[in-house]
Amino acid sequence: MASDNVTKLDIDEALKRVRPVIGPTPLSHSPTLSEELDVDVYLKWDNKLRTGAFKERGAINFLAQLSAEEKARGVCAASAGNHAMALSYHASKASVPCVIVMPTTAPLVKVQYTEHTGAEVVLSGATFDEALTTAKQITKDRNLSFVSAFDDPKIIAGQGTCALEIFDQLSDIDAIAVPVGGGGYISGIAIAAKALNPKVFVLGAQSLWATEAQERRLLQPGVHQRLRAPSIADGIAVKKRGELTSKLMSQHVDKFIQLSEQELAHGVIQFLEYEKALVEGAGAAGLAALYRRPLPKHCKRVVVVVSGGNIDINVLSRLIQGDMAARGRLVRLLVSVSDRPGSLYTVTGIIAQCGANVLEVHHDRSFSQGPGMVGIMFLIEVRDSAHKESIVSTLKSEGVPAYEF
Amino acid sequence: MASDNVTKLDIDEALKRVRPVIGPTPLSHSPTLSEELDVDVYLKWDNKLRTGAFKERGAINFLAQLSAEEKARGVCAASAGNHAMALSYHASKASVPCVIVMPTTAPLVKVQYTEHTGAEVVLSGATFDEALTTAKQITKDRNLSFVSAFDDPKIIAGQGTCALEIFDQLSDIDAIAVPVGGGGYISGIAIAAKALNPKVFVLGAQSLWATEAQERRLLQPGVHQRLRAPSIADGIAVKKRGELTSKLMSQHVDKFIQLSEQELAHGVIQFLEYEKALVEGAGAAGLAALYRRPLPKHCKRVVVVVSGGNIDINVLSRLIQGDMAARGRLVRLLVSVSDRPGSLYTVTGIIAQCGANVLEVHHDRSFSQGPGMVGIMFLIEVRDSAHKESIVSTLKSEGVPAYEF
Repeated sequence: MASDNVTKLDIDEALKRVRPVIGPTPLSHSPTLSEELDVDVYLKWDNKLRTGAFKERGAINFLAQLSAEEKARGVCAASAGNHAMALSYHASKASVPCVIVMPTTAPLVKVQYTEHTGAEVVLSGATFDEALTTAKQITKDRNLSFVSAFDDPKIIAGQGTCALEIFDQLSDIDAIAVPVGGGGYISGIAIAAKALNPKVFVLGAQSLWATEAQERRLLQPGVHQRLRAPSIADGIAVKKRGELTSKLMSQHVDKFIQLSEQELAHGVIQFLEYEKALVEGAGAAGLAALYRRPLPKHCKRVVVVVSGGNIDINVLSRLIQGDMAARGRLVRLLVSVSDRPGSLYTVTGIIAQCGANVLEVHHDRSFSQGPGMVGIMFLIEVRDSAHKESIVSTLKSEGVPAYEF
Repeated sequence: MASDNVTKLDIDEALKRVRPVIGPTPLSHSPTLSEELDVDVYLKWDNKLRTGAFKERGAINFLAQLSAEEKARGVCAASAGNHAMALSYHASKASVPCVIVMPTTAPLVKVQYTEHTGAEVVLSGATFDEALTTAKQITKDRNLSFVSAFDDPKIIAGQGTCALEIFDQLSDIDAIAVPVGGGGYISGIAIAAKALNPKVFVLGAQSLWATEAQERRLLQPGVHQRLRAPSIADGIAVKKRGELTSKLMSQHVDKFIQLSEQELAHGVIQFLEYEKALVEGAGAAGLAALYRRPLPKHCKRVVVVVSGGNIDINVLSRLIQGDMAARGRLVRLLVSVSDRPGSLYTVTGIIAQCGANVLEVHHDRSFSQGPGMVGIMFLIEVRDSAHKESIVSTLKSEGVPAYEF
């Protein structure tokens, strides 16, 4: 294998190493998504792998090619997520010592899982880049093999085995939509897919958050960004692309779509509601991209690659709340009433009569509309915007001023 | 088919009617749950059916046995959930007119889905019982065929096809865990399973909420219960058991477990975290029951039947919040500080330094600890109880009194 290229042959060889360890992940047709998107949508469930993401493919291919001596010395990687869990799990199964450097900000659950699977976890640095520097130092100091998360031909060839499985499971594929972070997954998939059928359209689904972060990184290093929300798709929120993967993507990927946080969140919700499946933000990117209708007209059979399912359920809960608000199923109302016994009872009676559920109540006596008045702020769950309008108009018809804010 | 019994033969015949319409649902092994529960856990995914629940099996078997004349006249049922969607969907596919009576309290999304699949939806009554009365009246007035949700031999035989699929997909089964509401599903499954292997242990997973509601119904009809939360497992929150199913269950089911709302919620969370799957409260009952270790020692290979996945994502979001609190990942702190500029900044600085995220802040100036003081209540997200303790002790070491409440 040339160190600066990956061929279909490399991926065929990788499959021989991957197959004895992990079976092919399921592929299924989605009638609901097909109806909604006007193309035949098939889902490739790489989130069903034991550690919840596709990274196992590359890790197995990398580990299998170490010499006995290299295996005895061990491997090292920097990662706060899926790469850490996949490498640690399969290194442990192959009895290869494994050091994972995680930033101190890594979610505790992922630190614990990585330790649980047998890796030595080193917490170092506030960011991934700092953890990476430590990992490279440890690799050198202890004479280990460094395992890149994406910018390595063995990793890329391993990830490409996903495409071989897809073509084995389904014929007449017109397009494949793949999440893009560092680019290892889509590079491997595109190389294999194009070799099997050069007409297959390969769509890369990126995160706008990552693209913007990459630009800021170049333009304004060190800018204080602590108040900015992290991406909900941390799996593709890569701030620095790979050199090899950049080259391979420019050769083999037909189109890229940059997805907003809202679009990625919507993708996660669609997977939950339509497919009853838990998918992480990055894992939903391929589906989210299809909602932009980015495919050439001839593409009728589309495979959406579901890369991973490791989303913190707490993040999921917030994402659902945001989605509820965006769909108009949450409403904030400010109601001005007399500040005396019975006022809250009267207003809540009207809301109850409309069949809406009150989630939060706050009283404001400082900015109220005159002496003796109180402003009551309600967060209310409604069925839809017509339901909201009916509440506001019922309140007003009873002489209670109510404003959405 | 005798109208008061269901035999293995009835279920074999049902499979011939069901199979051309819906393929067998997937069955998969769960390494993670097997490790956690010390038995080999297999999951039977009936939530993957098009309308998200097992009810399609019975509906297909019922519809297929109508005469041409009965089909032309149509069918009628009362349901606020999975039975409505399954019957409406398959009646529409078979061009059978379908009337579904739903209580006025039915979730809008289910009303819309049922209308979308082609049924005439009649909203009537505040409760399921009232909707049922209307449905029986409409059935009589319009000369339709009434389709019970569970207490009907054709429905029971249809649901039993699930067991035939399981035995076709897996050998050497020691036990099957099945959610129990009205009892149609477990009756059919138990009859088929016991006929194929009399040694199979059939475990019924019921909701304590339903058991309590049944008792209250008998003892104190009409008691005002509006402030009681509905069950998160509405699919098995059946207030009145079937006559036929009661008889069949007493003959064929080995053991029943009554699950609390907390246990059912925990089951939903386990499916999300371990299986990346969205399962409704009722659908998680079989798994939740296994956490009670209810099986005889010889049972090593257990099939958990996942009955449905139709949970409102808003309900899911609340369930996750409750689970976070139960796991000690949410904490409420009351902090007393001087009511002047900088106090909030100082306290939030200490919390930030501990790496915890503030979710809510409330000020209380009425019950504060003396003049010039203010009580600030924080809702904080922590990693675990040790993390919580570290925040409290850091605050105290800085001279800030902090109390969990």
